[in-house]
Amino acid sequence: MYIPTYDDMLSAHARIKPYIRKTPVRTSDYLDELTGAKLFFKCENFQEPGAFKVRGATNAVFGLDDAQAAQGVATHSSGNHASCLSYAAMKRGIPCNVVMPSTAPQAKKDTVRRYGGKITECAPSTSSREEAFAKVQAESGGDFVHPYNDPRVIAGQGTCSKEFIEQVDGLDAVVAPIGGGGMISGTCLTLATLAPETKVIAAEPEQADDAYRSFKAGHIIADDAPKTIAEGLLVPLKDLTWHFVSNHVSEIYTASEQEIIDAMKLIWKHLRIVMEPSSAVPMATVLKNPEAFKGKRVGLIVTGGNVDLDTLPWLTTP
Amino acid sequence: MYIPTYDDMLSAHARIKPYIRKTPVRTSDYLDELTGAKLFFKCENFQEPGAFKVRGATNAVFGLDDAQAAQGVATHSSGNHASCLSYAAMKRGIPCNVVMPSTAPQAKKDTVRRYGGKITECAPSTSSREEAFAKVQAESGGDFVHPYNDPRVIAGQGTCSKEFIEQVDGLDAVVAPIGGGGMISGTCLTLATLAPETKVIAAEPEQADDAYRSFKAGHIIADDAPKTIAEGLLVPLKDLTWHFVSNHVSEIYTASEQEIIDAMKLIWKHLRIVMEPSSAVPMATVLKNPEAFKGKRVGLIVTGGNVDLDTLPWLTTP
Repeated sequence: MYIPTYDDMLSAHARIKPYIRKTPVRTSDYLDELTGAKLFFKCENFQEPGAFKVRGATNAVFGLDDAQAAQGVATHSSGNHASCLSYAAMKRGIPCNVVMPSTAPQAKKDTVRRYGGKITECAPSTSSREEAFAKVQAESGGDFVHPYNDPRVIAGQGTCSKEFIEQVDGLDAVVAPIGGGGMISGTCLTLATLAPETKVIAAEPEQADDAYRSFKAGHIIADDAPKTIAEGLLVPLKDLTWHFVSNHVSEIYTASEQEIIDAMKLIWKHLRIVMEPSSAVPMATVLKNPEAFKGKRVGLIVTGGNVDLDTLPWLTTP
Repeated sequence: MYIPTYDDMLSAHARIKPYIRKTPVRTSDYLDELTGAKLFFKCENFQEPGAFKVRGATNAVFGLDDAQAAQGVATHSSGNHASCLSYAAMKRGIPCNVVMPSTAPQAKKDTVRRYGGKITECAPSTSSREEAFAKVQAESGGDFVHPYNDPRVIAGQGTCSKEFIEQVDGLDAVVAPIGGGGMISGTCLTLATLAPETKVIAAEPEQADDAYRSFKAGHIIADDAPKTIAEGLLVPLKDLTWHFVSNHVSEIYTASEQEIIDAMKLIWKHLRIVMEPSSAVPMATVLKNPEAFKGKRVGLIVTGGNVDLDTLPWLTTP
């Protein structure tokens, strides 16, 4: 297991800078008054493909040597990693193969195809996915870019916090959502060197709280079949992300489905940005734990903004 | 009639800078490909009270001498001007009286009250509003700040384009929505001096096209009772705004209700910002007149982001 270093993150940033956006930071006097904290929202939903995952994907794609690049990249994902990897591959002009469950939302498939990604559908089970992916990889020879348990991906995600620290002085804490742990690991990687006094706090849905339980137990616990509207956070920790979570994360807070929906709507209303349910989990935990954040300067990472605008969670029956 | 000057705009900017935000400019590769133009969106929806109108309101409020200020300000409005004037008055610590029709949305009333504005309700008719406003003004002695036909307000709105020109080089055109014409007038005021080669284009709902018809006829024509989802654009031009529209606007384009809704959803999806139907009219006209914008660098002013998230227009039957 190769653990990415601070220098890997710096190299990643130099490599991906021409292809990603330095996203802005939004603030709201109203939300500050509401929480008693000073909140800074890093808008990764404003990346062109709408998610922070373009950072890690671009680092992996542009780090390939020419021979590897000619064979392209491959992954399995039904979410933002699939579209962001397709986007990065399109920017380099190389093939991208994605294995997706046939049940994935049509909008996600459309986005992957818009960026030139080639989709192979599988049945929505782990065995079917693994079988389909092995076949695709064998046929294409594409380099496997895991959605999070990959040092290139973690180093790429870490560039977000580098920008954040440059944009906002004296953050007491950075709160990011945790699913597989790619963003949180990158955040730990960067802040441990650049701002060791800034706490890294992970935010997780109660209904997919495997990271929280792992953190408390001291070893990885995977959920069986979690269900949450924060669909970007369903996946479990892996060895590499567990390394960062177990060593550098200060706290993991959880929030209920209703708390996530309420926080999402609150941010849409007062920050006037479109963001995913997953991205609302940090705000939900800040609202739920006021004493932990009162009087503090708190950075929140808005991880993505790819939402089906026809089925907003506060307008549908849970 | 005093016509505000470029120097008035510069004074306004110096005066309001501590109280407003220099809003960011958003771009989207996808929307550029779709239109064949290079589009820049100036996000006035990111002002704290959610609309550009905070600029003009703040200029009027902070331009009062102390004796006038002690008596506060007053206006009639059921929209963003009411909340932005209340916000500016709160910042200066002076009273703000607002006459609103009893039928105004509860959310608008709540916002005015949150900023300390005092609401006097009237029946939803011009005569009732005028009667109520005369009474309120006589009792409070508050200085009347018209939503748009006021040189202080127009000079304030003009600061938006000053920032825009500083943020983006070589704009061929700036497109802004037109209702009463306050933003368009401020845009003309600033660009006529700062970037005379940049065209000012107004965008209007077909169903409230009084500015378009006035522009073509060469004199002000007021609609009887226009109806459009772009509720910020219902009001007619007045003498001061007509001065700027008739002298400096290059073109007025119109868009249908469905085109406005489609443009609004498109921007929410690809720019990932929350904006009002009124703010979508410029994009609707760009999509409708591709030949006019192809190959051009086009600035669009996103005027506001105060939307009822429970009744989005693409989810309700028109």
